Amino acid sequence: MISRRNFLKTSAIAVPAASVSSLVVFANGAHQREPLKKSFLPVGMAGYTFVNYTIDQAIAIMNRVGITHLSVKDFHLPLDSSPETIREVIGKFNDHGIQVYTVGVIYMKSEAEVDRAFDYARRVGVNMIVGVPGYDLLGYTEKKVKETNIKIAIHNHGPEDKLYPGPKDVYDRINKMDKRMGLCLDIGHAFRAGTNLVKAVNEYAPRLFDLHIKDVTAGNAQGKAIEVGRGAIDFPSFIAALRKINYPGVCSLEFEKDMKDILPGVAESIGYLRGVMS
Amino acid sequence: MISRRNFLKTSAIAVPAASVSSLVVFANGAHQREPLKKSFLPVGMAGYTFVNYTIDQAIAIMNRVGITHLSVKDFHLPLDSSPETIREVIGKFNDHGIQVYTVGVIYMKSEAEVDRAFDYARRVGVNMIVGVPGYDLLGYTEKKVKETNIKIAIHNHGPEDKLYPGPKDVYDRINKMDKRMGLCLDIGHAFRAGTNLVKAVNEYAPRLFDLHIKDVTAGNAQGKAIEVGRGAIDFPSFIAALRKINYPGVCSLEFEKDMKDILPGVAESIGYLRGVMS
Repeated sequence: MISRRNFLKTSAIAVPAASVSSLVVFANGAHQREPLKKSFLPVGMAGYTFVNYTIDQAIAIMNRVGITHLSVKDFHLPLDSSPETIREVIGKFNDHGIQVYTVGVIYMKSEAEVDRAFDYARRVGVNMIVGVPGYDLLGYTEKKVKETNIKIAIHNHGPEDKLYPGPKDVYDRINKMDKRMGLCLDIGHAFRAGTNLVKAVNEYAPRLFDLHIKDVTAGNAQGKAIEVGRGAIDFPSFIAALRKINYPGVCSLEFEKDMKDILPGVAESIGYLRGVMS
Repeated sequence: MISRRNFLKTSAIAVPAASVSSLVVFANGAHQREPLKKSFLPVGMAGYTFVNYTIDQAIAIMNRVGITHLSVKDFHLPLDSSPETIREVIGKFNDHGIQVYTVGVIYMKSEAEVDRAFDYARRVGVNMIVGVPGYDLLGYTEKKVKETNIKIAIHNHGPEDKLYPGPKDVYDRINKMDKRMGLCLDIGHAFRAGTNLVKAVNEYAPRLFDLHIKDVTAGNAQGKAIEVGRGAIDFPSFIAALRKINYPGVCSLEFEKDMKDILPGVAESIGYLRGVMS
């Protein structure tokens, strides 16, 4: 039972304290593994979405909405985790039908931090890092890619990002480098940075390794996170572009609105993506 | 704060009781009235969805997912409500951006019950009843339609329904009657009764007044409620058929899974519908 006081505190509408309510949010496992249409591209979750949630809560949410892929973030699996912790955390995700397909976003500001990221990815057992190495570390990163056969997907972070506002800022720096250097295209931040997303998908296709899917209210620095489908991004065109290039990766939702109460927005966003894909 | 005990009781996964959680389900009014795409058909809610919720909770859920139309059910507005109660309830919905566009489903087993339904609709101020008059009452219902200029949308309820399993069972009985006699096509029940939904939309177009939108796991009596988009109904074709006939009504979601915890499934279903419509 939640207290009426707490209930009302977060509510603009006076909602009576009811024994029957939406509180069974992390409800039973029967929600999981519903059949999903084959036409759907693989939809995953960018771990940052769960910044205010425990691993168990994150799993329950992903099961509830039928998400099977995760880019795990360090607050759930720290970079200095012991082999035992890694086994435990990855095992828990796997036991609930969730594949950890990459790690990140990981920021790298020195060769030691690049080393640490690649060592972490190897120990976690993934073949890709979503990361942000400084310009001066791209050569060293390439060396590590060659050494480890672990790909790097460099993440763009919008107009405020001094290094990689949009995907062009990544692509132009890595397109002559090892083919395992690529992009994690964050479509919300890219759109806010003025990127034409369909053009970006087409131009950067061979280096498009991962996606952070979100919607934003406007294509500029003022754009704010919103449920996918309610914002300014043209998803039918974007999804069509992904299909056209046979995008082989995961479409990971990164939901950044209502971050202490994400389930409804995540569910709506995932539903919308599936609707567009169907 | 919810108790750990209640939390775990409903959870297959042990989720730690956390202060940070998805409990702010009926959260603040900032969720409401987000801009929605013009390409969307009007999406509403069939009141039965809220059988375990108060009016305030129902409003909060509809605001959260951006739903503006409601077919109000009698547990929120009893048929014998006083004018004061009607004013209060309808006013509350209106104050939160929700238009009550119809009443029902109302079952009618005598002329007195038909009278009561039409009187109720008139007093509530809607121009349509979603209802189920027995075969022998169709003539009397038609008389009331002519008298009151209130339409009747007869609801089909699947293979178990002795009167109207599918829309053909309605249509064949009313298509020679007053043009204000029509269908509330419940697509889940119709599909379970073996109806080809696209064909039904085309054939019954002039009499298609209302829709109960849902998805089901199978096109037979065993079909169970599931989040829209995860089941067996082909929504892209169905929505395309609605567009083709210029369906002038509301697409009301009737969500019947997890009925004590509907918000995530409602959000996912509404998201999916918007995705298909976009």
